[in-house]
Amino acid sequence: MDDQNHFTKIPEPALRRLPWYLSYVKLLRSQGETIVSSTQIARKIDVSPSQIAKDLSYVDIHGKTRVGYEIDDLIHVLETFLGFTRTHRAVLFGVGSLGAALLSDSGLEQYGLKIIAGFDVKESVVNKKIHAIPVYHSDQFIERNSTIGAEIGILTVPPGIAQEVSDFMIRGGIKGIWNFTPFRVRVPDGVVLQNTSLYAHLAVMFNRLLS
Amino acid sequence: MDDQNHFTKIPEPALRRLPWYLSYVKLLRSQGETIVSSTQIARKIDVSPSQIAKDLSYVDIHGKTRVGYEIDDLIHVLETFLGFTRTHRAVLFGVGSLGAALLSDSGLEQYGLKIIAGFDVKESVVNKKIHAIPVYHSDQFIERNSTIGAEIGILTVPPGIAQEVSDFMIRGGIKGIWNFTPFRVRVPDGVVLQNTSLYAHLAVMFNRLLS
Repeated sequence: MDDQNHFTKIPEPALRRLPWYLSYVKLLRSQGETIVSSTQIARKIDVSPSQIAKDLSYVDIHGKTRVGYEIDDLIHVLETFLGFTRTHRAVLFGVGSLGAALLSDSGLEQYGLKIIAGFDVKESVVNKKIHAIPVYHSDQFIERNSTIGAEIGILTVPPGIAQEVSDFMIRGGIKGIWNFTPFRVRVPDGVVLQNTSLYAHLAVMFNRLLS
Repeated sequence: MDDQNHFTKIPEPALRRLPWYLSYVKLLRSQGETIVSSTQIARKIDVSPSQIAKDLSYVDIHGKTRVGYEIDDLIHVLETFLGFTRTHRAVLFGVGSLGAALLSDSGLEQYGLKIIAGFDVKESVVNKKIHAIPVYHSDQFIERNSTIGAEIGILTVPPGIAQEVSDFMIRGGIKGIWNFTPFRVRVPDGVVLQNTSLYAHLAVMFNRLLS
């Protein structure tokens, strides 16, 4: 055991809640507030005050007993902890409808994700630009990524080739796959995988609307 | 208790896994396969065979012992159950970067979601069309939705107004909110809420890449 290492890995559910708190305290700041308590956050966010305090214990912020957190500090610490203040370079594979839509979403850059290039095999998009982002032929990926140096790969290809494209991205140096396909790709140990299945969310909504 | 009602509400985690199975069996069909077993699905999808069989017990499909499921039947039953074969009418509030991107994603329609109109207050987008979808002023929503008849509302507004816009959509007849903002909106009983927080997924990826 490394005694120097005080870093406790934050559990994923806690990590996923932090952006909710960030969003709410930014709203409070825009309303002129300067202090917020975990009880106050809890009233808005449907998470218990003790859970919020515990989640925030993973980030380097200290509230004052019976007062709360300084909002400016909390926002700064959360944005830094969540990685939203750094720029993370990404590439995107599969410039179809959803892929092109994500290339056009400049909002991702505000949260620290900069898509440097798209890759596809379709003549209609290769060597074009979408929203000023160049699209290259997939065959060029490994060579190009040696200069692009992207660590994150966004996967918006047809599900039938999702696994093979994921493997290919990893061979080119990608360390994190953001999978938008409904296919469950597998990645080796040490590679981070996040699944965002829009269609699964749709399925839940459709089913629940019928009930 | 209503004896006529044989419908057992499928738990959300099971419901969210069904699109994975669907995606995989569609891949198998494209490879010429006609039969699939839950063991075979399990090998690819990281869910146990017994869990898969249990999940599939909620849909109206029967496998043959030691053989498996007919792939054509399974695809048909899953697509129908998940609502992907019906058209669900939706409106979208907040035609900013992400909102415009979703209006441009024709892939959603393949899964049964048809966005009929966008709503915003910005002069630069009101009364324009994006990808052939008209954008109207938000003030016109309640009147327009009496003819549009959308049940699903996609929320891509700035987080600071997410709650108020969500309430407004519900007043106009929306029964399901698909929330893409990082703000935790609250909805009354009987309204379905699905959160798709791209930024939370990004946060998890950024954090895990550092670890």
